[in-house]
Amino acid sequence: MTVLAFGAHPDDLEILCGGTLAKCAARGDEVHMAVLARGQCGSATLPPDEIAAIREQEAHTAAEVIGATLHWLGSDDLNIAYDQALRERIIDIIRIAKPDVLITHAPNDYMEDHRAASRLVEELSMAATIPNIPTAQPPHPPMLPIYHMDTVAGIGFEPEVYVDIGDHFETKRRMLACHESQTAWLAAHDQVEVEDMMVTAARFRGFQAGVTYAEGFRVLREWGRIPTRRMLP
Amino acid sequence: MTVLAFGAHPDDLEILCGGTLAKCAARGDEVHMAVLARGQCGSATLPPDEIAAIREQEAHTAAEVIGATLHWLGSDDLNIAYDQALRERIIDIIRIAKPDVLITHAPNDYMEDHRAASRLVEELSMAATIPNIPTAQPPHPPMLPIYHMDTVAGIGFEPEVYVDIGDHFETKRRMLACHESQTAWLAAHDQVEVEDMMVTAARFRGFQAGVTYAEGFRVLREWGRIPTRRMLP
Amino acid sequence: MTVLAFGAHPDDLEILCGGTLAKCAARGDEVHMAVLARGQCGSATLPPDEIAAIREQEAHTAAEVIGATLHWLGSDDLNIAYDQALRERIIDIIRIAKPDVLITHAPNDYMEDHRAASRLVEELSMAATIPNIPTAQPPHPPMLPIYHMDTVAGIGFEPEVYVDIGDHFETKRRMLACHESQTAWLAAHDQVEVEDMMVTAARFRGFQAGVTYAEGFRVLREWGRIPTRRMLP
Amino acid sequence: MTVLAFGAHPDDLEILCGGTLAKCAARGDEVHMAVLARGQCGSATLPPDEIAAIREQEAHTAAEVIGATLHWLGSDDLNIAYDQALRERIIDIIRIAKPDVLITHAPNDYMEDHRAASRLVEELSMAATIPNIPTAQPPHPPMLPIYHMDTVAGIGFEPEVYVDIGDHFETKRRMLACHESQTAWLAAHDQVEVEDMMVTAARFRGFQAGVTYAEGFRVLREWGRIPTRRMLP
Amino acid sequence: MTVLAFGAHPDDLEILCGGTLAKCAARGDEVHMAVLARGQCGSATLPPDEIAAIREQEAHTAAEVIGATLHWLGSDDLNIAYDQALRERIIDIIRIAKPDVLITHAPNDYMEDHRAASRLVEELSMAATIPNIPTAQPPHPPMLPIYHMDTVAGIGFEPEVYVDIGDHFETKRRMLACHESQTAWLAAHDQVEVEDMMVTAARFRGFQAGVTYAEGFRVLREWGRIPTRRMLP
Amino acid sequence: MTVLAFGAHPDDLEILCGGTLAKCAARGDEVHMAVLARGQCGSATLPPDEIAAIREQEAHTAAEVIGATLHWLGSDDLNIAYDQALRERIIDIIRIAKPDVLITHAPNDYMEDHRAASRLVEELSMAATIPNIPTAQPPHPPMLPIYHMDTVAGIGFEPEVYVDIGDHFETKRRMLACHESQTAWLAAHDQVEVEDMMVTAARFRGFQAGVTYAEGFRVLREWGRIPTRRMLP
Repeated sequence: MTVLAFGAHPDDLEILCGGTLAKCAARGDEVHMAVLARGQCGSATLPPDEIAAIREQEAHTAAEVIGATLHWLGSDDLNIAYDQALRERIIDIIRIAKPDVLITHAPNDYMEDHRAASRLVEELSMAATIPNIPTAQPPHPPMLPIYHMDTVAGIGFEPEVYVDIGDHFETKRRMLACHESQTAWLAAHDQVEVEDMMVTAARFRGFQAGVTYAEGFRVLREWGRIPTRRMLP
Repeated sequence: MTVLAFGAHPDDLEILCGGTLAKCAARGDEVHMAVLARGQCGSATLPPDEIAAIREQEAHTAAEVIGATLHWLGSDDLNIAYDQALRERIIDIIRIAKPDVLITHAPNDYMEDHRAASRLVEELSMAATIPNIPTAQPPHPPMLPIYHMDTVAGIGFEPEVYVDIGDHFETKRRMLACHESQTAWLAAHDQVEVEDMMVTAARFRGFQAGVTYAEGFRVLREWGRIPTRRMLP
Repeated sequence: MTVLAFGAHPDDLEILCGGTLAKCAARGDEVHMAVLARGQCGSATLPPDEIAAIREQEAHTAAEVIGATLHWLGSDDLNIAYDQALRERIIDIIRIAKPDVLITHAPNDYMEDHRAASRLVEELSMAATIPNIPTAQPPHPPMLPIYHMDTVAGIGFEPEVYVDIGDHFETKRRMLACHESQTAWLAAHDQVEVEDMMVTAARFRGFQAGVTYAEGFRVLREWGRIPTRRMLP
Repeated sequence: MTVLAFGAHPDDLEILCGGTLAKCAARGDEVHMAVLARGQCGSATLPPDEIAAIREQEAHTAAEVIGATLHWLGSDDLNIAYDQALRERIIDIIRIAKPDVLITHAPNDYMEDHRAASRLVEELSMAATIPNIPTAQPPHPPMLPIYHMDTVAGIGFEPEVYVDIGDHFETKRRMLACHESQTAWLAAHDQVEVEDMMVTAARFRGFQAGVTYAEGFRVLREWGRIPTRRMLP
Repeated sequence: MTVLAFGAHPDDLEILCGGTLAKCAARGDEVHMAVLARGQCGSATLPPDEIAAIREQEAHTAAEVIGATLHWLGSDDLNIAYDQALRERIIDIIRIAKPDVLITHAPNDYMEDHRAASRLVEELSMAATIPNIPTAQPPHPPMLPIYHMDTVAGIGFEPEVYVDIGDHFETKRRMLACHESQTAWLAAHDQVEVEDMMVTAARFRGFQAGVTYAEGFRVLREWGRIPTRRMLP
Repeated sequence: MTVLAFGAHPDDLEILCGGTLAKCAARGDEVHMAVLARGQCGSATLPPDEIAAIREQEAHTAAEVIGATLHWLGSDDLNIAYDQALRERIIDIIRIAKPDVLITHAPNDYMEDHRAASRLVEELSMAATIPNIPTAQPPHPPMLPIYHMDTVAGIGFEPEVYVDIGDHFETKRRMLACHESQTAWLAAHDQVEVEDMMVTAARFRGFQAGVTYAEGFRVLREWGRIPTRRMLP
């Protein structure tokens, strides 16, 4: 199976579905991680281009932990979705990766970039199927199931699919640790110790599902996208 | 795996999850079908005891189609849930069948008996785990996942788990056909051709999930009951 | 009464409210059918302009079945809503048709074009009332009730208004049959036999409301738009 | 048409649907008003039997304003639903009145008596259709639509059907005025001037629907009960 | 201010609102803790009466940690709500404690006892206001706000009021630690380390609200019960 | 405390939260009122620029009633959100006012301008915190709580925070009265007497919360924005 996950910023996928991606990789899936925005807002001390360059490197390092392919789209934080070129890039990444299943943010997550990512993936994964929407790549015809990741801090999100990530939790922790630059930024901007928050969330979702650590998802319920089997590990 | 399904009346399980039970049986599950009420209201021409006796026989015949064990609880239609003996019977059936998963009505289905069945199964499946609730049977300790079946005519129900029943649809049709006595009753009381309604519902749920015939379910989301894998076939 | 229905693509109105429009026409309403996008994506074999031209003709033929006026807006599939000219066209169609009631897609339907149509109709039907928004046409002052059609395959949609289309079902079938070009496309792209899906949906909504065939709608609940009588037939 | 409305206490129907009942009567419907509890709690100064006797008289006077038949069930406030005799009385009132449509409280209204009334009417209106549930009266076979009235103070209730009661508002006011004993009680117990609250609610629902005074309802969406036409005036 | 909290079993209040009660006590509120069921099911090794006696003692010890008054109702686990005497006891506790605010379980919590507690508190706190419902105590006239505690494991619960319990977290931990008998039982029956679960939940709710530890609540929205100020600390 | 409220048009804040702003001012808060659109659609007789100039003056007069600072953004009615300059203006107003709390429209209010205002305030109040988003002003780092005002006519809105505005109701009335130009327009366009509607809404929300006049709000539940204390008066 091939899994393609779209996160708004570098570190979002690691926080919200890193354990699941690690479990996918462990069962032999081909895993693709796509990051829409370059994270240029994620510093209180470095200028945009500098922090963005650091974060691109961090994203690559994290993807390598599980042998995933990283797709870097390079849009601007807080400015996703206003760029036609971005739209074509998203279509092409889907047409290149040829996934069986998509993962992205919940449509009601806590900031506009996450919501924009969710809408774009939904909208453009249909465009990717259409022969009369030509891009550099040929169409990838199947309509794809989309799993929405938990929201940040789990607000407004009731998971319906839980993935037991107990055996992959340390891998998730290592993936997140690659985003070194964000520790200080999130402490400054959000008064949060990001690894601690990740552990708490994974533990809380675990309690809900009777396991040690879990990640939660919902399936997008739209015509053509509803699977009759479980696609996450 | 062992599956135990509770329906309010004879024919409810056949209409709402017959294909799934057939598919369970086909994959080698031990299947138990429990019927709470004896169906004494289901006739415009026969008196209560007479129609109830016929329906008990029909329920047995239908269960035999897939080799399921039938548990007949014999409560009265429109009077479920007022009977302490019934409560103990439900506990004991769970303790006897020792299921891995329970199936029952949605808690908002269209008539009180269905809703009472849903509540009783939820409540008493916890009681079945408790050593200090003694009955004729020893406790069955695990807290069990509960899948809620679709409502009749699908009103107020958005499935989150779809089971592809394409290969078992004719078996479902045969199970339903065993309830011969209900054809006339449902035509008279509900102006409905029951086989036609079942086919339409299975086809409609199938369209939603991209298959020919499907049945829809929801997982009861309560602490201790949420599985991290798909338990239905 | 005058009814104006906006569909995203040619064939959407036929699938989702064709029976209701036929019933409106039959009771003497003036019926307008507006189609936002030209359907240039609806073919696996023909290039955009060619299939769009065919579909415009099919839409006209379908509208003629019930004597409706067709308004063809000619936007691009998967690119609705980015065009200021389209916005003015929508305002003007409302100002020309002077409807008493509007019908359009549900705001949560399965693809972005449908959702864009829903938003645009809601937004621009207010603009159509405003004197200080000048277009080629004078304003149509009343705030109009909007009925949202069922979603495709009924996912995420609980109708609150059911229209019994039993006497107009064959008309609906004929309207849909005009969209010949789509039979092959939907079979290829969505693995669906479109007439069969339409029949199943109408039958399912019929079972819910105790009639043979029905179409389901919801009323947009916003200030200034809520009617105190039933406006659909 | 015959309309049968069930209220928990004397004055509930007048407050929540008096204008609609008056409008029903005005268009020629046969109107039945049934009151489940005798209102023995509705006084800070009079003992139970005394206040209940006064309230029964008030209920009769109010019903007479619109020529409605009053059915007095005489259950105890805060003790509805524990009485099998009450259940049979409800079945019989339905079998006697032979309504085309039922009105009762919303299932989530603000006190247990209102919620019990809602459940009982739903449950027993099915029982009323069943030949094998014998009472003093023969069955009334049709499954009936149920309209739920607004909640008290409109909390947790989004109407989907609005009735314009502008022409019947003074009648509603007169009906409510018959419940003289409650003015002091509601001022003492709930710090509310009941006529003022009723006027405010009718005016607020009116603003929502663009008329001077309105009452709001929801249709119970359950199989067998969903109408394809508007049954309220 | 006087706060009265009703929990279904000994230890429920400690787990779900112990920090808030400690904070109430710390600001000078009079705090009452009422426990409906005696916890006789909470052991895999001790017989009902024996474990219940232990748990009563544990509940007293926990209440003493914050100087709260304990009210022990002594109903049976899994059998709450079938006992008229229990209903009168609940009314009387309210009439004795004369609270300004009530706290109890969410109406959708994970087991029937919790839901029964929620319904009983709602229903009987109205009865407690009524002069014509005589018990051993005179009525407590005000309609009281009710805050619903989080569900166990936070499933199906989106808090709308968060209480920062950072300064009272160790007190909460000490209160919970008094329920020594439950450590083994919950490990056996629910495979859960209860202190760990409590810490995780408090931490998770804390992350949601930007503090170290929090407890979450919802306000029951019913007429007569909605406060215009925050009543929790 | 500093409060910054964003309304779509002149008069929206007065109608939907005027009493609360007056109460904020009365307790000593610094109050800022920002108006996104210039109201050029709000006349049936005056041309756009003329009515907009009048309305700007009216907005200033109303703000002066409570000593609030008015921020006039001057966007076009029915065209909010397409203007990058507007986005920077919103960021700067937040960075200038340095509020502790934000108030704006509900995200589902009845017209697109209100919804656009809600989205923009949410999105850009995050941008205002970011050092790497440079504007004329330095960043205002805290993530701010956002309170959503009631919808117009209260449709689709269940308040969770009620503000008792009894002592400030006449001030609210005076603020609204400053918008003289709108009396005729709303009567013409919406068939509504605006002061009457405002009084009815305040009275209705008051009844819900047991006070004479109230305004209702909801808290935006997103990570980083949830307060653990009540911020409205």
